[in-house]
Amino acid sequence: MPALATLRTRLAELADLDALGGLASWDQETMMPPDGASARGHQLASLSRLAHERAVADEVGEWLDDIEADAAALSDLDRDIVRLARRDWDRQRRVPSELVGERAQAASEGQTAWQAARATSDFEAFVPALRRNVELARDYAACFNDVERPYDALLNDYDFGVPAQRLETVFARLTEGLTALLAEQSAAPADLSASLDVPIDAQKAAVLSTLRRIGVGDDSWRVDVSTHPFSESLSRRDTRVTTRYEDGSLESVVAALHEFGHALYERQIAPELERTNLGRGTSMSVHESQSKLWENHVGRNRAFTPVLAAELAAGGFPIDAEALHAALVQVRPSLIRVSADQVTYPLHIALRFELELALFENSLDIGDLPAAWNDGMRRLLGLEVPDAASGVLQDIHWAAGAFGYFPSYGIGCLIAAQLWEQLEADLGTQDTALSVGDIAAIRDWLAERVHRYGRRLDTEPLVEQATGRGIEVEPFLRHVTPLVEA
Amino acid sequence: MPALATLRTRLAELADLDALGGLASWDQETMMPPDGASARGHQLASLSRLAHERAVADEVGEWLDDIEADAAALSDLDRDIVRLARRDWDRQRRVPSELVGERAQAASEGQTAWQAARATSDFEAFVPALRRNVELARDYAACFNDVERPYDALLNDYDFGVPAQRLETVFARLTEGLTALLAEQSAAPADLSASLDVPIDAQKAAVLSTLRRIGVGDDSWRVDVSTHPFSESLSRRDTRVTTRYEDGSLESVVAALHEFGHALYERQIAPELERTNLGRGTSMSVHESQSKLWENHVGRNRAFTPVLAAELAAGGFPIDAEALHAALVQVRPSLIRVSADQVTYPLHIALRFELELALFENSLDIGDLPAAWNDGMRRLLGLEVPDAASGVLQDIHWAAGAFGYFPSYGIGCLIAAQLWEQLEADLGTQDTALSVGDIAAIRDWLAERVHRYGRRLDTEPLVEQATGRGIEVEPFLRHVTPLVEA
Repeated sequence: MPALATLRTRLAELADLDALGGLASWDQETMMPPDGASARGHQLASLSRLAHERAVADEVGEWLDDIEADAAALSDLDRDIVRLARRDWDRQRRVPSELVGERAQAASEGQTAWQAARATSDFEAFVPALRRNVELARDYAACFNDVERPYDALLNDYDFGVPAQRLETVFARLTEGLTALLAEQSAAPADLSASLDVPIDAQKAAVLSTLRRIGVGDDSWRVDVSTHPFSESLSRRDTRVTTRYEDGSLESVVAALHEFGHALYERQIAPELERTNLGRGTSMSVHESQSKLWENHVGRNRAFTPVLAAELAAGGFPIDAEALHAALVQVRPSLIRVSADQVTYPLHIALRFELELALFENSLDIGDLPAAWNDGMRRLLGLEVPDAASGVLQDIHWAAGAFGYFPSYGIGCLIAAQLWEQLEADLGTQDTALSVGDIAAIRDWLAERVHRYGRRLDTEPLVEQATGRGIEVEPFLRHVTPLVEA
Repeated sequence: MPALATLRTRLAELADLDALGGLASWDQETMMPPDGASARGHQLASLSRLAHERAVADEVGEWLDDIEADAAALSDLDRDIVRLARRDWDRQRRVPSELVGERAQAASEGQTAWQAARATSDFEAFVPALRRNVELARDYAACFNDVERPYDALLNDYDFGVPAQRLETVFARLTEGLTALLAEQSAAPADLSASLDVPIDAQKAAVLSTLRRIGVGDDSWRVDVSTHPFSESLSRRDTRVTTRYEDGSLESVVAALHEFGHALYERQIAPELERTNLGRGTSMSVHESQSKLWENHVGRNRAFTPVLAAELAAGGFPIDAEALHAALVQVRPSLIRVSADQVTYPLHIALRFELELALFENSLDIGDLPAAWNDGMRRLLGLEVPDAASGVLQDIHWAAGAFGYFPSYGIGCLIAAQLWEQLEADLGTQDTALSVGDIAAIRDWLAERVHRYGRRLDTEPLVEQATGRGIEVEPFLRHVTPLVEA
């Protein structure tokens, strides 16, 4: 079947170009001297233009036609490769390349405008760039006539097959459960994070030794520093995670575990999927479930905290494990999503989902966003927003035209809790293993139930395969309830 | 003129892909975890295959036809762009893509075979891989019917327009001059390098502070460590040099100055050539002239040595400047090219040129290479070669199919000396400036006379432009004579 071989060669090429783009981005955030930025922008633009051209080429459609004419002859793996190749090709072909270019341009200009607007907390200054990004996202959504609601087309870019209607049900139940739970807290507790006044040297020692304990070795990993922590998988055996160090904070350790979760997912995808179109994590929400699982269910687990405390002590910062755990799991409503605790975090997401949906279903004008934001923060978290910078202007996503992305952060939290419950149901409690830093059973269970599939299963089918049920809210509520009631 | 704009867009894309390949190679040598190698091989192969396809595409020829039909309308710059684009396209189109693939494969396998053969000093084990690379290089040369001798086609890949006949004249005079000079040395002097038993920490301090003195700043440079020192220019403002540190050696400092020379060349190419086909150094020999100029004419300059001595002292290794200089310029025939002194170095190259020419003009069989090598070392340097590992097997180039490359190392030494003579004739002696580490005048003269042209002038026209004469041997002999006679 020569068309299949030809298709697979093209898909391998696209995977290689994608890895090179990943390398260029990783380098930009970790190694590149600052004056390299402008040329790097050109290099990345050329690469993505070329990759897009190769992905949507007419010939790919011809190869697919040929292969599909004799689909019965395909192996199971090749059937999945062809199915996803067809889906990706169809979706990408629907979007005119001028619109792709306009969106890239608007995203770039939007981020510049956002940075300036956020610096002065001036929402009005951001409105034109935001409006342009919303309009282009609407044009983009209009390219897809196979979805129920336009916003579904945007969601499909991040989490294929989880439509707005499904999210409405999930976030309604989640919001109801969390707000009821938080109502039991009479007032925001005192901030315990001051007890974690960890010097940077001790943080660094703890990050590196904790990662080493859970399998990060020099043969196939790098650990670096960047402004925003991220992970980049250049291949199954070339994994790069970053974290950031701020004096007196343990965010470095938590972020490193978070990025480890993303990275482990990519490393444990079945080897035969490498350099195919299936060889990466299936969706943003499943990816986020992996980072949240390692961040919250392992890293903040009471059983694991003594390991962290020991690594901090070895790094020169002796700390009581119980005090460390109390600070790590403290619940305290706050204004900024990225530093929110694990209980209130999904409410930040629920608000963004609600506002995005209203924007794309024309029940909210852009000019009314700040008021709607502030109302939502009052209703969901009981907080007054003092200014746009710590409110509606806090995130970069909308500035970059990334609408439909936020929900995956919330769904990721739910899937993480659901997987963790299933994992402990299957394997028994992990407390003993975690207390000595042994994560082998967790790692192997995730490989078997989640990671190895790559893109072969979409989000909800994957969750069903792993847990026997679709995405559920209750496991997350069961996970967080003791944290508030404690 | 839309064809010109289209051509220039393609050339910009190719420049961007080239930079991404450079990044991937830099990363491989400096940052990549070892297990990433196999996937990186795929990524680089996909990138170069794709770049080749885009470079030799039929459409490029059509654009060139269109543009050339109205060449009078072109600006000077565009005329050079089109001239080189035509030359590159014609040259690349002559070679069947199967042959390109076979050469890449043979080069990869050749390097593996060479590593094993060198480890056991077993030339016979290397013969099949070498023979394959020679045969494919012959097939490659046979694609070009516009050269006088097949070897010229190989030379053109590294140094366009400097044919074998020219090299024969140059290397004959050079060999004659150098062997006569060395005959004045009664016996090899005692090895002074022991006086440079510099600890690695002091080397590192001296490398970084010396580079900083001559303009290496964090905004647009990186200095890293790799097994073999190299430089990589990802853009005019993203320059990466490496060096290597061995206990008790000053090679780290010398190599850093060498790589600085390569890097400065790329940085000072005229900005309007960036992202065109002219925006890089014009040839291997001119590139090598820049590295050799900074290594030998600046770094080993008696006037500059006190600066190096001061930086070593600041790094914790006090050393007498005169002793340092004596060790840096010592002449002592030796077996290994890469550690040869500046006087005997070109004789190592003359030997390789002689052998390559004989191989490609069928006057030497591959099986007779070791004997011919050993004869040459006796004749040119008066040395007995004890084994193949320190003789014919010492370099990687032939294993990688890179025939025609070595001569550029020798021509680079000549051009460096010729440029330096001209520079001091134009500007006066640089001794005072160098004694305080001031290299601004040298840097600016090189920008004006050499660097800014990029590929607009080929090797010999560029040398003529800079010095008023073609490539000459005498300046180099004048430079080295005092080093032997001293």
